[in-house]
Amino acid sequence: MTPQSEDFSSWYNELVTKAQLVDRGPAKGTMVIRPYGYRLWELLQAELDRRIKDTGHENAYFPLLIPESHLRREAEHVEGFAPELAVVTHAGGKELEEPLIVRPTSETIIGEMMAKWVSSYRDLPLLLNQWANVVRWELRPRMFLRTTEFLWQEGHTAHADEADAMRETMLALDLYAEVARDIAALPVVQGEKTPGERFAGAARTFTIEGMMRDGRALQAGTSHYMGTNFAKAFEIQYAGESGRLELCHTTSWGMSTRMIGAVIMTHGDDKGLVLPPRLAPYQVVIVPIGRGEQLDAVLTAAGELAHRLKAAGIRVRVDQRTHLSPGFKFNDWELRGVPVRLELGPRDLKAGTAVMVRRLGDAGKEQLDLADAPRTLVGVLDDFQALLLQRATEFRDRNTATVDDWGAFAKAVSTGWAQVFHCGRPACEDDIKAKTAATPRCVPLAAVPETGVCVHCGAPSDYGKRVIFGRAY
Amino acid sequence: MTPQSEDFSSWYNELVTKAQLVDRGPAKGTMVIRPYGYRLWELLQAELDRRIKDTGHENAYFPLLIPESHLRREAEHVEGFAPELAVVTHAGGKELEEPLIVRPTSETIIGEMMAKWVSSYRDLPLLLNQWANVVRWELRPRMFLRTTEFLWQEGHTAHADEADAMRETMLALDLYAEVARDIAALPVVQGEKTPGERFAGAARTFTIEGMMRDGRALQAGTSHYMGTNFAKAFEIQYAGESGRLELCHTTSWGMSTRMIGAVIMTHGDDKGLVLPPRLAPYQVVIVPIGRGEQLDAVLTAAGELAHRLKAAGIRVRVDQRTHLSPGFKFNDWELRGVPVRLELGPRDLKAGTAVMVRRLGDAGKEQLDLADAPRTLVGVLDDFQALLLQRATEFRDRNTATVDDWGAFAKAVSTGWAQVFHCGRPACEDDIKAKTAATPRCVPLAAVPETGVCVHCGAPSDYGKRVIFGRAY
Repeated sequence: MTPQSEDFSSWYNELVTKAQLVDRGPAKGTMVIRPYGYRLWELLQAELDRRIKDTGHENAYFPLLIPESHLRREAEHVEGFAPELAVVTHAGGKELEEPLIVRPTSETIIGEMMAKWVSSYRDLPLLLNQWANVVRWELRPRMFLRTTEFLWQEGHTAHADEADAMRETMLALDLYAEVARDIAALPVVQGEKTPGERFAGAARTFTIEGMMRDGRALQAGTSHYMGTNFAKAFEIQYAGESGRLELCHTTSWGMSTRMIGAVIMTHGDDKGLVLPPRLAPYQVVIVPIGRGEQLDAVLTAAGELAHRLKAAGIRVRVDQRTHLSPGFKFNDWELRGVPVRLELGPRDLKAGTAVMVRRLGDAGKEQLDLADAPRTLVGVLDDFQALLLQRATEFRDRNTATVDDWGAFAKAVSTGWAQVFHCGRPACEDDIKAKTAATPRCVPLAAVPETGVCVHCGAPSDYGKRVIFGRAY
Repeated sequence: MTPQSEDFSSWYNELVTKAQLVDRGPAKGTMVIRPYGYRLWELLQAELDRRIKDTGHENAYFPLLIPESHLRREAEHVEGFAPELAVVTHAGGKELEEPLIVRPTSETIIGEMMAKWVSSYRDLPLLLNQWANVVRWELRPRMFLRTTEFLWQEGHTAHADEADAMRETMLALDLYAEVARDIAALPVVQGEKTPGERFAGAARTFTIEGMMRDGRALQAGTSHYMGTNFAKAFEIQYAGESGRLELCHTTSWGMSTRMIGAVIMTHGDDKGLVLPPRLAPYQVVIVPIGRGEQLDAVLTAAGELAHRLKAAGIRVRVDQRTHLSPGFKFNDWELRGVPVRLELGPRDLKAGTAVMVRRLGDAGKEQLDLADAPRTLVGVLDDFQALLLQRATEFRDRNTATVDDWGAFAKAVSTGWAQVFHCGRPACEDDIKAKTAATPRCVPLAAVPETGVCVHCGAPSDYGKRVIFGRAY
């Protein structure tokens, strides 16, 4: 495999295939998610879905195909998505009277239904979520990051006023940051997008941004406050307590299979994937070693050990493949990012131990007491999860520079992020992008109030705090 | 609502909307699944997904869009699906060189990938499953039963030989029958489809058939043995132990949101839905009764009771809506099919009881001791689940006639099913359909070996047992 330092992009493209996460689909830019990759998605889904439900949202499902005229009702929205649309023109053997769009996102069709379901203040807030596939035509596809079709959840909510809708927008952002940090071990920065980077049709867009191991930023989830833009376009109105008709304030927020790309590029190394235990399809792999009758005894013991680990809530797999050498299996599971490997041979059995090797760290081959294995491994996995978050946080902080002059800025964004003052003018953003390929990633929520002059044009800064710039996926 | 006896079809169409299961989507034949309907689907999904995984299958995800040429590779398959296809001709602002089909099912795209993934006998069996949406253009849509887009799972497996593939085909059918019977309380008949009713491209098709309360049959899940048809078309081959290349034998099997239609039409009555507890989004609803300070005390007690029921694994909801009368709420939850309603007022509280009303049965208003409520209700829900299955089984048996002459046959299929001998000729099937609208539903696996003469044409019977005929959805 190409090393990260030589060509990060080749490393990524080779790894996602070799680790059996994905394969190319036959239609341009499409992705087949193989079982190992899909299991990662299911585990992430379960964590996010639970939090979405626990905060009062209900899942629903809206149609894939949207009449073209619906999409046109919110002008900025259609303008933003028009270049990426896939269009069904024929169905049932006939040309359709009106073309149908394969949903690129579902604000319009959900807006239409919200208008039907909301009539009184008592119907609010309306808190919906959908797990679905969406299609956005991609000219430069990259597995998980930009594919013609991807899987995601999209939350869509309607509220009585701006305050309630903004609370929801921030709640969704917090859920995303929590899942990113606690489950995927991604130390994301929460912040607001500058006007030029907003979602098409949104009044405000918030994001969680992660730093990949090549120093680039990846937007890993977004939450939008729509104001009354979609409510106006789709007549989402309610009668207040006084009976007067009011427009709803709506939000939408999404997290997608892109997160898997973020996990790969945040934690992976030249040996392959490194998976956070809370997302790893297998947290522990047991490789039995031996031949003939000795192997039979080892396999029996491996099965028993797996059983005990499962009972402790550990996802474990015994690699029973007989035609592959232990050495091949070690490399294979390293490539596939399994946090902990156990080697179990006749001598280990006799000693009541196994050899334990962690996917990261300098511990090398450690001795694991089989009697205590479940308890020990629960601790090892917790430590491993914490180590990944700490390592990624340190990497991000080491590669984030607070700079005030242009030379230092250009240098910083060539390898990481720059925290700078900016004038807020879109034209100035464009100039910076043309010169350095860097874009404003976000205005961090947690940044301290500060003012200064724009790192590029010298005009007074606009956001009351520093903005993060970086090159992005 | 229109009574079932007056117009079953109107009853169904009105109920699915009034119970807030679905709404019409804007594109022809599409369905919006509302939270109450989607929760039913999620609960069914969880039961089926667990069984699919427990039997060694892995979930994966394949692209929605399939190049037209792929679909054409298996001749019978494309012929069967051609009239129902939705076609993407434009994407990314341009006309595509090759149109893309929105998947109506995924044999072709999965076949293509299987060919890439299988090379040796060691790669077999390959046991995949996908949860996805599919699109089949419908001229006469009906919510849940026939919609332009629907949700389903589709299992796709590859095997070394016919025996292993047939074992898999029957395993999937058994899973479906188990979920239908134990979870949805549907006493389905397992059987094989006659050649004229096979899936396009299959060598053998098996089905589970349920009887709806209007006597019609509904195919609630199918499992297909493909022989080597798709293996030939997509070159799914493996090197055997001797090194010789062999064709795989493949299967596919699917269960969809149609199952929700089956639940509605098997258990529902003139008051509305009747949901089996194992699928009910809420198994118990508590309606607090009272005003002012008394209501506050009741609400507190209702919250505590709900907490205790949840701890016992019961899905419970307290109906806290203040602008609706208790009577309105009783009707609403009856309409929505909640198995058990509890009424809790100040007098009940003082007595340490609640009024319990089961959605079905003659018990009327019963007194529930609050101290024992969780344990009692677990039992009541189990009984309710069993009652639904028993009631549906009796209904089916009462409306299934074993007949040998044409007059009795025509009468039987006008209100239910007929078990008859049939010659097996497609032309004779067509004649029967033209005269009575009845089709062969299946050759039941469990039927006793018997021979006789065809109920329609008098020729010798072909299947070695009686066949079930009925009108179908």
